[in-house]
Amino acid sequence: MRNHCRFFGSPLIERAEIIEDITAKYATRNRVMSASNRKQALIPDGADILPNPTGTAPGIIWQPRSNLTIFTFPGVPSEMRRMWEETAVPYLKGQGWGKQIIYSRMLRFWNVPESTLAEKVSAYLNLPNPTVAPYASKGEVKLRISAKASSETEAQRLIAPVEKQIKEIAGFDCFGADGDTLASVVGELLRKSGQTLSVAESCTGGTLGGMLTDTSGSSDYFWGGVICYDNSVKIGMLGVNQKDLGKYGAVSAIVAEQMAVGVKKQLATTWGLSITGIAGPTGGTETKPVGLVYVGLAGVSGVESFEFHFNPVRGRSLIRHFSACHALDSLRRRLLKGE
Amino acid sequence: MRNHCRFFGSPLIERAEIIEDITAKYATRNRVMSASNRKQALIPDGADILPNPTGTAPGIIWQPRSNLTIFTFPGVPSEMRRMWEETAVPYLKGQGWGKQIIYSRMLRFWNVPESTLAEKVSAYLNLPNPTVAPYASKGEVKLRISAKASSETEAQRLIAPVEKQIKEIAGFDCFGADGDTLASVVGELLRKSGQTLSVAESCTGGTLGGMLTDTSGSSDYFWGGVICYDNSVKIGMLGVNQKDLGKYGAVSAIVAEQMAVGVKKQLATTWGLSITGIAGPTGGTETKPVGLVYVGLAGVSGVESFEFHFNPVRGRSLIRHFSACHALDSLRRRLLKGE
Repeated sequence: MRNHCRFFGSPLIERAEIIEDITAKYATRNRVMSASNRKQALIPDGADILPNPTGTAPGIIWQPRSNLTIFTFPGVPSEMRRMWEETAVPYLKGQGWGKQIIYSRMLRFWNVPESTLAEKVSAYLNLPNPTVAPYASKGEVKLRISAKASSETEAQRLIAPVEKQIKEIAGFDCFGADGDTLASVVGELLRKSGQTLSVAESCTGGTLGGMLTDTSGSSDYFWGGVICYDNSVKIGMLGVNQKDLGKYGAVSAIVAEQMAVGVKKQLATTWGLSITGIAGPTGGTETKPVGLVYVGLAGVSGVESFEFHFNPVRGRSLIRHFSACHALDSLRRRLLKGE
Repeated sequence: MRNHCRFFGSPLIERAEIIEDITAKYATRNRVMSASNRKQALIPDGADILPNPTGTAPGIIWQPRSNLTIFTFPGVPSEMRRMWEETAVPYLKGQGWGKQIIYSRMLRFWNVPESTLAEKVSAYLNLPNPTVAPYASKGEVKLRISAKASSETEAQRLIAPVEKQIKEIAGFDCFGADGDTLASVVGELLRKSGQTLSVAESCTGGTLGGMLTDTSGSSDYFWGGVICYDNSVKIGMLGVNQKDLGKYGAVSAIVAEQMAVGVKKQLATTWGLSITGIAGPTGGTETKPVGLVYVGLAGVSGVESFEFHFNPVRGRSLIRHFSACHALDSLRRRLLKGE
């Protein structure tokens, strides 16, 4: 900010309304504004203030000369985003911008490689409007359908048939769109059917429970679980058979199944979902390498398990993330099939 | 890549060594290379290949004309980072770059506002070499100490006294440096003293356990815990008193303390650490607003609890993150004080 200001030769002015706003925000947090916070009230002479709904540092809209408008935003991403949406966008629209809009819908896929999906929907990847573009991150594959139109409604009308056709091609591989997560989609399926879920986590250590409870209202269907990182917890809290632990090891299909059955029983839920695996980088052996993970799923009609082999080079953090996502996806596909 | 290529008028060549590398990588994953993967082997005529240690898409080093060198990297951040470190940096050093290096050390702080810390260490914020700059994200405050020098050793020699003085000023507020996390630091303190930890999580739903087990080797001191999202789990698995739940509510100091005592007892650990709170956006009342969180800490000499008030505008996800971090920080400060 101060560098811009020097560039255009404008003096910085301390604005009383910003000082007032910051003081009030600090007061509600029972804190006193420090001298360095006062700097946030210095803005170039002639600039308009963009109020900050969530933080203290305001942004500005400033026209240092004709045909040049400078917007500044705070560096905190969440504050920047809200300020952009709540103050900058309305300002720009008021100035006559945005007559032609770009509107996107992001379809989300799990357990299908990007290249396989791209080939299945290749006919759609060269459309002029809407356009369809593939993305991939952390094991999730996405297709962004973007339409240029005069309004959001018009854009949605262009997107709808393409979305419908792609979903038909992808089947269960498409788990949702936009803000959906595997956890939120599983949650909606459970809520609709009045079913409940508990989890037993070894190598993920709580990550799966963390994902499930990231959705507000998840207490309607998620009751909790046991983090059984140590084998004594698998035995004592979940009733895993000590002999089986010795014979097959903690990372085995049978232990995953006993964990799922145990937590379902202890918490009296419809479903019990478990994860046990070797996240690495240490702890792997020749027969049980880093990246070997078992998911157990216990339901009304019995228990089953799924074996996964993740590439060790992906690292501990991603292997844990993949494990939790695949556990959710296993339950999602089971719920979609019906029981 | 293809756009750059057109720009400089070079044809794209399919390189056999890339095809071989991709085929081999797919084979170890029991997958077959698809036609669209072949595109990754197309690189501009005359370019050198930057091998990709973890993924399939290679990067390139290309001099389309004199005084212009283009590096390309894959879009996956983890692949990009490893390729930068393992192939690009050695290449650049070989070309005589990096005779003067910049080396940084990031000091990490918790439970101190950025402005307060900046004032405490203000004498250091205008040093010429090393420089000291404050950063803040997700409740954590950081100070980056950066030195320009002819070698890493020389840079470390410049940084060491400044780091020592800042740590003396900050005391317990500085929890670590560089790759340290609150969870890894707590883990080291537990490991050194041969103590163990279990957790009982309500509003965080497993996030705290997830953070603790993100550190490889955490099974040495972290035994597990109970995700007691539903009150029936607090009662059944942790022995929380049903009458107290009714009288004081699930979000109260007494329930936090009973959760911590219960999990410590059930899992037979040195410490029991609990979290119960209202993460929002719904569920708040006038007396118990969104952002009210209690942390319970049970140890050898008894149990205590801590009350936190997070700003509801920070949102569910950050409130849960703050809760888990403050729980870890409460234990960290207790371990540092000794018991």
